[in-house]
Amino acid sequence: MYYMLSELATFLNSSFKGNDIKILGMNTLEKANKNELSFLANPKYTHQLATTQAGAVIVTEEHSKHISHALISKEPYKDFGRILSLFNKPQGSLQGINPQAYIHPSANVDPSATVYPFVFIGENSTIEKNVIIFPGVYIGENSHVEENSTLYPNVVLMAKTHVGKNCTIHPGAILGSDGFGYAPTAQGIQKIPQVGTTVIKDNVEVGANSTIDRGTLDSTCINDNTKIDNLVQVGHNVSVGKNTFLISQVGISGSTTIGDNCTLAGQVGVAGHLKIGNNVTIAPQSGVAKDISNGKVVGGTPTVDRQTYLKTLTLMPKYPEIFKRLTKIEKKLKNQ
Amino acid sequence: MYYMLSELATFLNSSFKGNDIKILGMNTLEKANKNELSFLANPKYTHQLATTQAGAVIVTEEHSKHISHALISKEPYKDFGRILSLFNKPQGSLQGINPQAYIHPSANVDPSATVYPFVFIGENSTIEKNVIIFPGVYIGENSHVEENSTLYPNVVLMAKTHVGKNCTIHPGAILGSDGFGYAPTAQGIQKIPQVGTTVIKDNVEVGANSTIDRGTLDSTCINDNTKIDNLVQVGHNVSVGKNTFLISQVGISGSTTIGDNCTLAGQVGVAGHLKIGNNVTIAPQSGVAKDISNGKVVGGTPTVDRQTYLKTLTLMPKYPEIFKRLTKIEKKLKNQ
Amino acid sequence: MYYMLSELATFLNSSFKGNDIKILGMNTLEKANKNELSFLANPKYTHQLATTQAGAVIVTEEHSKHISHALISKEPYKDFGRILSLFNKPQGSLQGINPQAYIHPSANVDPSATVYPFVFIGENSTIEKNVIIFPGVYIGENSHVEENSTLYPNVVLMAKTHVGKNCTIHPGAILGSDGFGYAPTAQGIQKIPQVGTTVIKDNVEVGANSTIDRGTLDSTCINDNTKIDNLVQVGHNVSVGKNTFLISQVGISGSTTIGDNCTLAGQVGVAGHLKIGNNVTIAPQSGVAKDISNGKVVGGTPTVDRQTYLKTLTLMPKYPEIFKRLTKIEKKLKNQ
Repeated sequence: MYYMLSELATFLNSSFKGNDIKILGMNTLEKANKNELSFLANPKYTHQLATTQAGAVIVTEEHSKHISHALISKEPYKDFGRILSLFNKPQGSLQGINPQAYIHPSANVDPSATVYPFVFIGENSTIEKNVIIFPGVYIGENSHVEENSTLYPNVVLMAKTHVGKNCTIHPGAILGSDGFGYAPTAQGIQKIPQVGTTVIKDNVEVGANSTIDRGTLDSTCINDNTKIDNLVQVGHNVSVGKNTFLISQVGISGSTTIGDNCTLAGQVGVAGHLKIGNNVTIAPQSGVAKDISNGKVVGGTPTVDRQTYLKTLTLMPKYPEIFKRLTKIEKKLKNQ
Repeated sequence: MYYMLSELATFLNSSFKGNDIKILGMNTLEKANKNELSFLANPKYTHQLATTQAGAVIVTEEHSKHISHALISKEPYKDFGRILSLFNKPQGSLQGINPQAYIHPSANVDPSATVYPFVFIGENSTIEKNVIIFPGVYIGENSHVEENSTLYPNVVLMAKTHVGKNCTIHPGAILGSDGFGYAPTAQGIQKIPQVGTTVIKDNVEVGANSTIDRGTLDSTCINDNTKIDNLVQVGHNVSVGKNTFLISQVGISGSTTIGDNCTLAGQVGVAGHLKIGNNVTIAPQSGVAKDISNGKVVGGTPTVDRQTYLKTLTLMPKYPEIFKRLTKIEKKLKNQ
Repeated sequence: MYYMLSELATFLNSSFKGNDIKILGMNTLEKANKNELSFLANPKYTHQLATTQAGAVIVTEEHSKHISHALISKEPYKDFGRILSLFNKPQGSLQGINPQAYIHPSANVDPSATVYPFVFIGENSTIEKNVIIFPGVYIGENSHVEENSTLYPNVVLMAKTHVGKNCTIHPGAILGSDGFGYAPTAQGIQKIPQVGTTVIKDNVEVGANSTIDRGTLDSTCINDNTKIDNLVQVGHNVSVGKNTFLISQVGISGSTTIGDNCTLAGQVGVAGHLKIGNNVTIAPQSGVAKDISNGKVVGGTPTVDRQTYLKTLTLMPKYPEIFKRLTKIEKKLKNQ
């Protein structure tokens, strides 16, 4: 499989510079050979334009002067992704419904779906068109997976879990496990049954080994286009808006609401029963203990606005010095 | 299935207010309809009493004046849980021992147990009465699961793991994996074999994708009634007491002892070889580097008592200002 | 199975003190009986030498004066590990290739390998000599596992994953999942296909439920002898050097390079596109936002050198007091 540079330019509705060469694949600036296309998205790597062996490079108009063969782009990272999709072959090579899978007689599996060996599909569950279910996946009763979604190996959907269209659930992710609900009583800890559901809307990705608990009574909901990284915890009754990123190892406590277009950076923890607005960005490892209104960029524990947070980061190493200066002043004043 | 409001009052050994209506299920104040019972546990939601469509609400005596139909309770959250248990149907719909499971000839599985397809039960393992083992579970050799426990999909019990009575091990949890034991030597890193066991006592829950390492020589032990949330790490040789909560993403390093009735909030990290007493509460994201005595409420890195911790949280955003004030004083003194 | 104390001394190329007794196994100082060997590695437990019932104890020359039966060692922890290996029996009791596994006709599995039931081995994958693959493991197409490696239950190797010699991949670990790559565009979030590979070199261990993403174009690489603990996240395009420890719940963001002989303690987070040198040690829960040069010992968020970090830890509880002292000075100056 190959594309001519001119074809790729047409595909991007853009232009190219240099000869109209054959492109067999894509690679990094450092590793690409003369048959490969590369890209420059992060200015940190601009110096590699001088030494790359790539046949051509996706660059902005501005950077194209540095190289002989270029595919011009206003958004090189985005267009890199678009072209890479042309070369990409999805994972897995089986088709059809494998006889080594267990499918409950009452389940409704579309014949266009792919079901690998060692998959379990429970009572009254529905699997729609072109869904791909890899080995070791468990789908509990009364669950529903909409068309074109992929469940990678060892994904678990507990009962009454709904996965929308075009979703990708990465290996080992658990959707619909019991929330952490207990009432401490004089007679000991009493479990609160978790009988709600988990609803994943369209175009969502859930990362490897992430966990999303079902609602207690109601549902835990992840809305359209939201992307969740690996090892993220989403508690019961949480709602996450559209187009939001939850980066690796984030933890969201129960009954909290996260808005649209948010980014929670790695290892952020959010307490329960909070409301995080739309367009909120939270710095890595922050501890969120109160509501955050729309559009805020915050960081720290407790979270403060970006400017204050950056200042506290700068000052932190100076605390020992501050302490000394304070003591010095006190001595001086005492001697006055 | 339904219950009369009066029946539920009798069940709770309590009283009700309003007509003796039929209750078909439970729901939140916001979503309940006239055939459903709701509850008010968190005062944050008191205003919803005015607008709820619920047929009746579990409330304290004090709050009952705000609504026409109420089930009176001293502990609404606890009683909500008790009534919800009446309506709750356990997950899964198969029974018996499925022929698509692999059971080692020497294993001893009680005929009342449920074993789903794609379960592996190893040599000399014992599965007692009414245990339910979901698809994809691995039980290594010489393991033992006591009566009425449930192992959800893709749980792993490595060799010599013991799970007590009435336990729930949530999907993807790993019990008995090797601890992280290595000796750095002049010839490189040398692995210390991990040959001990993992012991889970009665009424314990372990959350989805949590990991509990086996002891090096001895055992890692989780005692009665302790509840562990998702994505928690418990290192080798750790002992966790009774009635303790480990909230999501907590990490306990090797050979540390946690007492009874403790709560470690989300993302807390505890160093190795420490002793945390009974009735200790640790704030989210804290880093514990020394022993903590009985009854302490602590937070921060390093952990300090609650009052100091809350003050440091309040002061944190003021550090840039403190720094400016200090510099101002120094200038003033210089000019004197 | 037993060894004479003299045999063990010969094995260690060392000497012993007391009678030449039979040793049937190993245990802790607290739990060992007269037929067991124990060890003293952490000086914290020295007082247990007085009360231990162990038949003999591995100790340094210096500590041997406290006990009647000793195995003398310059490195007791290392030698404890070496002797424990003699007594250690590997997990699992099946052999051969189980007919309940699915092996793609084009896969190449060495006849000396062990393949448990419910294992999936994909197209064109290669499994070399003495590899052991436990139940529930998924191996995607074009993957390769070199000799003497063990994949514990429910491990996932997505397509094109390479695992070197003598590796141990602990239960539930996911190698080769998609990296978190998205381009925000005017038309919404666009996924960047993740088409690279994951390469695990020789003698590596990856902990339970840890996740290592594949490269975007290139590879994510874990080099020889590196040991990764449970629930660790390694992002796409990351390279981790040789002999490095990543302790539990560490998160490494995409395209970062970690050198040789490093230790990243529990819950450390590292931002993307950074370069961490060789022989670097990072304290628990630190947040790394810039490059770190060779040999540094750092801690905190942001990371500072060890001395400064320890001082800030000591000062932290005093911040409320510092604030009061500052206010007092200001009042005093105002009144002058």
